[in-house]
Amino acid sequence: MRILVTGAGGFIGSALLKSLMSDPAAPEIVAIDLAERPTWTAADRVRWICGGVDDCAIMDAIFRAEFDLVFHLSSIPGALAESDPRLGRRVNLDASLDLLEGLAATSRCPRLVSASSIAVYGPSSGPVSSRTPARPAITYGAHKRMVEIALADHTRRGEMSGISLRLPGIVARPGPASGFGSAFMSELLHALAAGEPYCCPVSPSATMWWLSISAAVKNLMHAGAIAHCGAVQLPALHLTIGEVVEAFAEAGGMERTSLVHYRPDDRIEATFGCFPELDVADERALGFIDDGSIVTLIRNALAQAS
Amino acid sequence: MRILVTGAGGFIGSALLKSLMSDPAAPEIVAIDLAERPTWTAADRVRWICGGVDDCAIMDAIFRAEFDLVFHLSSIPGALAESDPRLGRRVNLDASLDLLEGLAATSRCPRLVSASSIAVYGPSSGPVSSRTPARPAITYGAHKRMVEIALADHTRRGEMSGISLRLPGIVARPGPASGFGSAFMSELLHALAAGEPYCCPVSPSATMWWLSISAAVKNLMHAGAIAHCGAVQLPALHLTIGEVVEAFAEAGGMERTSLVHYRPDDRIEATFGCFPELDVADERALGFIDDGSIVTLIRNALAQAS
Repeated sequence: MRILVTGAGGFIGSALLKSLMSDPAAPEIVAIDLAERPTWTAADRVRWICGGVDDCAIMDAIFRAEFDLVFHLSSIPGALAESDPRLGRRVNLDASLDLLEGLAATSRCPRLVSASSIAVYGPSSGPVSSRTPARPAITYGAHKRMVEIALADHTRRGEMSGISLRLPGIVARPGPASGFGSAFMSELLHALAAGEPYCCPVSPSATMWWLSISAAVKNLMHAGAIAHCGAVQLPALHLTIGEVVEAFAEAGGMERTSLVHYRPDDRIEATFGCFPELDVADERALGFIDDGSIVTLIRNALAQAS
Repeated sequence: MRILVTGAGGFIGSALLKSLMSDPAAPEIVAIDLAERPTWTAADRVRWICGGVDDCAIMDAIFRAEFDLVFHLSSIPGALAESDPRLGRRVNLDASLDLLEGLAATSRCPRLVSASSIAVYGPSSGPVSSRTPARPAITYGAHKRMVEIALADHTRRGEMSGISLRLPGIVARPGPASGFGSAFMSELLHALAAGEPYCCPVSPSATMWWLSISAAVKNLMHAGAIAHCGAVQLPALHLTIGEVVEAFAEAGGMERTSLVHYRPDDRIEATFGCFPELDVADERALGFIDDGSIVTLIRNALAQAS
């Protein structure tokens, strides 16, 4: 079994790669990222390609190997794509479409797991599900939605078996600022864990969807193993900032709550702090999971980050 | 006022260009098409560029002139895009995205009227409106939906004022076969008008959305004149093939019904002959129109074609 991982050096890509490498079935893994090969990747298990998914020469060479399973994770983060939409288009849209087109031309009909995003929805008041109309309010979300449509079309054409996972903000990303608008969720957790003060750019009542990196990786692996196609919304815990801070304080001492100062930024609060309930009954039935409890979320988020 | 029309040599583009040329306000018109300049275009009114919208050198030169209003009509038809999806992507998707990106970089914030398609919906049982979830079942429809999303995003960014018109099959296209799956609608009208026999690939009860070329052009002109943005479903008459044949017979003699023989093709019937009701109350309120009656539809369809 031959597996391709794009964005393999990123936060999610690294964690996924570790999970794939731990598989005793020993799949052959090709990993591509702008970053250099991490020291922890075994050279005999992972063929590491240092380059961009928007580099046609590199990608054409990759397509000469045929893959059974592809995890497409490489991405320009949302804030950067918003300020440089041409770069966002080149990487998040065009390179993704080229990847799909290249894979479609191979003979294996690969399984393709694509990292989509909750940014496809845009503002929504009711419970959000994968059936909620997509009205992206940032360029990153528009491109992610377009790739979902392209993947569904290649799947319809019988050229691959594609699933798009709509990822919420995954915690806890390593600092410093990642270019993701939701980075404050991870920064908060790191600060609380380290006992350091944190100035939070949203109010205590700001509500987000929380999923740890380890639960995200389990969902990616699961998506690669099942046959279901289309866009799915990953489950996540629906929690306020205040609830997360309180859970930390209960475990680590009430003085931790005083570490957090709130200076809400209207724009960040509006974009990243007003998430409604999720309706992921369909996805739970398919076997996708969240962290189950706030305590487990925090433990999972920080275990991986350390 | 400077106007750009892509696909200006096509069926809809030609009719639109005639309408624009008849405007006494005498706008400056730039027209681009793969076809040579038609003889009826006045050289002093229309600057004709013979080339493809996927030709970067040509388009870069075009963007040096700034436009107030753009009608983006150029397209690879659905059947051709389905059999050659790379060509479909290059023209229907990539060139459209390049056009939007090029216009976004100009300083005029142009009004952009984009020809989208009912192919964005895919199979649908209930009444269809612009709010119906888009689940395109052909590559052409997938690309059209992606361009709608990109146009909405450029509009959100304040770079243009974009409206996507979801066009039904427009009648009566000149023969021979145009590469549009719905070409039989036009072929039927031409055969009935000429009193020639016609073998119809759908049953008499097959139901389609009908809009004449003259009503389509009125809607395009209207879309250019209003400020509303987003994807809109053009009104159309919801008629069976049998109703259209009967209306012809009532006007031109009952013997005309015997000209039509039916040999339904399951695939064509399923894709192009099962259209549900339209719900276009929003679009009517915005001033968009259908032909009003079946008799007017036929007259409008054939007047323009002659």
